[in-house]
Amino acid sequence: MNMSVVTLLSDFGTADGFAAAMKGVILGIAPDARLVDATHDIAPGDVEAAAWALSQYWALYAPGTVHLAIVDPGVGSARRAIAVAADDRYVVAPDNGLVTRVMQAAASWRCVEVTEPTVIRPQPSSTFHGRDVFAPAAAHLASGLALERLGPPVEELCLLSIDPPLRGEDEIEGRVVHVDRFGNLITDIPGEWVDSSWLFEVNGRELGNLRRTYSDVGVGEAAVVIGSAGTVEVSAREDSAAEKYGAARGDPVRARR
Amino acid sequence: MNMSVVTLLSDFGTADGFAAAMKGVILGIAPDARLVDATHDIAPGDVEAAAWALSQYWALYAPGTVHLAIVDPGVGSARRAIAVAADDRYVVAPDNGLVTRVMQAAASWRCVEVTEPTVIRPQPSSTFHGRDVFAPAAAHLASGLALERLGPPVEELCLLSIDPPLRGEDEIEGRVVHVDRFGNLITDIPGEWVDSSWLFEVNGRELGNLRRTYSDVGVGEAAVVIGSAGTVEVSAREDSAAEKYGAARGDPVRARR
Amino acid sequence: MNMSVVTLLSDFGTADGFAAAMKGVILGIAPDARLVDATHDIAPGDVEAAAWALSQYWALYAPGTVHLAIVDPGVGSARRAIAVAADDRYVVAPDNGLVTRVMQAAASWRCVEVTEPTVIRPQPSSTFHGRDVFAPAAAHLASGLALERLGPPVEELCLLSIDPPLRGEDEIEGRVVHVDRFGNLITDIPGEWVDSSWLFEVNGRELGNLRRTYSDVGVGEAAVVIGSAGTVEVSAREDSAAEKYGAARGDPVRARR
Repeated sequence: MNMSVVTLLSDFGTADGFAAAMKGVILGIAPDARLVDATHDIAPGDVEAAAWALSQYWALYAPGTVHLAIVDPGVGSARRAIAVAADDRYVVAPDNGLVTRVMQAAASWRCVEVTEPTVIRPQPSSTFHGRDVFAPAAAHLASGLALERLGPPVEELCLLSIDPPLRGEDEIEGRVVHVDRFGNLITDIPGEWVDSSWLFEVNGRELGNLRRTYSDVGVGEAAVVIGSAGTVEVSAREDSAAEKYGAARGDPVRARR
Repeated sequence: MNMSVVTLLSDFGTADGFAAAMKGVILGIAPDARLVDATHDIAPGDVEAAAWALSQYWALYAPGTVHLAIVDPGVGSARRAIAVAADDRYVVAPDNGLVTRVMQAAASWRCVEVTEPTVIRPQPSSTFHGRDVFAPAAAHLASGLALERLGPPVEELCLLSIDPPLRGEDEIEGRVVHVDRFGNLITDIPGEWVDSSWLFEVNGRELGNLRRTYSDVGVGEAAVVIGSAGTVEVSAREDSAAEKYGAARGDPVRARR
Repeated sequence: MNMSVVTLLSDFGTADGFAAAMKGVILGIAPDARLVDATHDIAPGDVEAAAWALSQYWALYAPGTVHLAIVDPGVGSARRAIAVAADDRYVVAPDNGLVTRVMQAAASWRCVEVTEPTVIRPQPSSTFHGRDVFAPAAAHLASGLALERLGPPVEELCLLSIDPPLRGEDEIEGRVVHVDRFGNLITDIPGEWVDSSWLFEVNGRELGNLRRTYSDVGVGEAAVVIGSAGTVEVSAREDSAAEKYGAARGDPVRARR
C-alpha cells in the first residue's frame, strides 16, 4: 500500500465549504491520497503566521509527503503558484513568503512554478486558486508526478525578510515570532544561546531567569523556558503571557546576564 | 481497494464530542470508509448557510461519495430524515431544505426517507439523530447498501424558497446568497449575465465596474468579480466587504449599464 | 487491511501547527494508522470539558482504537503520562483526570505510565509532551505494541472528584456537567430516574415538566428532555438555555414531583 499523505493548511476556515472543495479535487486526482487537515484557521491573509505554523510540522512527515499551504491574499495577481521539494517533502503554496521557514530549515531544495495546463483545472477562477491550481498540483505530486512536470524551474522565491536575533557577550536581542493559542510568546532566540544565568525582559517588563518548564513558577507568574521549537518562549503559567505583557508578534525580547 | 468517501458537515462544532461520536458510528458500520471533515462550523441552526456550503463541494467528489450533512434545528419533530442520490453522489440530511442547492444543480435524483429499523441505531435519542439515524444511514450507503433499502421513496422534499435574480435589458437585481469568512458578498447573479460594461451597487453604495480579480483594485477598494462559484461576488481587497458595506445575506445587489 | 484508528482530542486549536505536528509523529511511527480528529477546540486547560467530550465518543469506536487526548496544563511538571486500556480501547492522556469518565464507564481497565525511552522521542521538550511523549505512545499502541511495554503499571490514577446526583422520594438534586455549543445544559441526572410527572428548576427558574423532545415546546421555551447522553438536559428551543437561565457547568438542577 502506498498512499501519499497530503496535508492542508489554509486561512479558509471550513464553514464556507472551500476547504472541502479542495479535498474533493485532490481525491478526484489522487483517490488513494491520505488527507490530513493541518489547519484552516490561520487568520485571514496572515502569511507570516502560516509560515510559522508550517515550520512546526512539515519536517515531521515522511519523505514524499505533500504539504498544501494556501494563504493567498494576492490570488489572481501576478504572484506565482509554486511547488517546492525541500528535503524530499513537497510544499505547494503561493509565492508570497509562505515557504520562508521551510526554506530556512531545508538542507536542499528545488522549486518550480505551477503552470502546466494539464495540471491546472480548466478555466480556473481568478479568486480560488486553492481549488483550481494548488490542490490539483498537490494531488498530481501525491500521485507520483515529477516536480519538474508542473512547470519551469524557479530560482528566486519571494521570501519574508526575517531579521535574525542579535547576540552580544552579555546581551541578546530577539523578537516574538509567534503568539500561540495559549498566549505564549515564542521568540527567535535559540535555546543554545541561553542558560539559567540569563535574565529576560519583554516590553520593559522583567521576566526573571530561564526556567526548565511552566510549572517551575506559580500560577500566573512568568516562566521563560526553552519551548518546543527549540527557542526561548515567554509563558505565564495557566495564563496568557501575550495579554499579561501586552506583547504581540514582532515585539523585541531582551536578555542579559 | 474500494473505500467509499464519507464527508461530514454539521453545526455541532467539535468541542462537545458529538462530531467524533458520528465518526465512531460510521467506522463501526463501514470500517473502510474514508472520513473527510467538510465542516462542523456552520452557525447553529443555519440551514441556509449549510445548503450553500454543501453546494460548493458535493459535485467535486467522485460518484459513490456519501455526503452527510446535519444542521437540524427540528430534530425530534416530524421532519423526515432523507437520503438523496443526486448524480451518483449521496446526501444524507434532514428534510429541512439543506439539500436545496444540490437538487437545483443535479441532473437527476431520487430520494428515500430513512426509516429502516435495522439501519437506525436501537432506541435512538430524540435529540441526536446525527449519531443515531443519519450517521448509520450514511455508513450503510458507504458500505454498498442500495438507497432503496433505507426506506420508502420521497417524491416531494422540503426545499428553501430561493428567489431567482431578475434580469432586464439594462438592469439586474440579485441578492447576497452567502457571506464568506473573508467578508466577500457572494451573489446569485450568474457570471455570464455581466461584463465590464455593468456597474454594481449594494445597499445604495456604488461599487464600480466588474473587475477581473481582487488585485485589480487598491487595498480596501471594492472589487466586483466573478467568484469561484461562477456568480458575481462583491469584495473589498484585503478587507471585509460585508463590514465595509454593512451588507448581509439576503441584501439586494443591483447592476445597470 | 488492518489500519488502527487513532482519534485526537486536544486544546491546541489547529492554527499553531501543534496538532499537525502530533499527526506527523503518529504517521511516522504508524504509517497505516487512520487519524480521526475528534476535536482540538477544548477550551485551553479545561480538563473537565475534555473528560466529558471524550465520554461522548470513546466507546463508539471499535476495540483496538487508540484515543489520544491531550489537555495538559501541568505539562513539564511531575504529573504522569498514562496509557489506559479500557474495555479494549486505549486512551493515552496526562494523568490529570482527563480519563475520569472513561474509567467510570469501563467494565474493566488497566493502566501504565508512559516511561519507555524507546517510545518517547529523543530529548523531549518540557512544553510539548503531546508531540514528544503522548503521540509516539499512541502510535506504538496503534502499531500493535502491548500496553505493558510502554512502562510500569499504575494502580491509582488522578481522577476528577465528581459528586453523584442525589435522589430522594420526591426530590432530585443534580448538576450541570456540560454546556454544549447550542447552550444546552447537560446534567448528571439519569434519564431513568424521571418521567413526565417531574418538574424541573435551574437557578431558581421553573422549567416545567419533562418533554419528549425540543420541538414539543414553542421557540425560545424551555424543554427539559432526556438528552443523547441518557441524562436530563435543559434546552431552550432554537435558543441557548445557558444564556436564558444564566447557567453554567456546576450549577445545581433540581427536580420534584
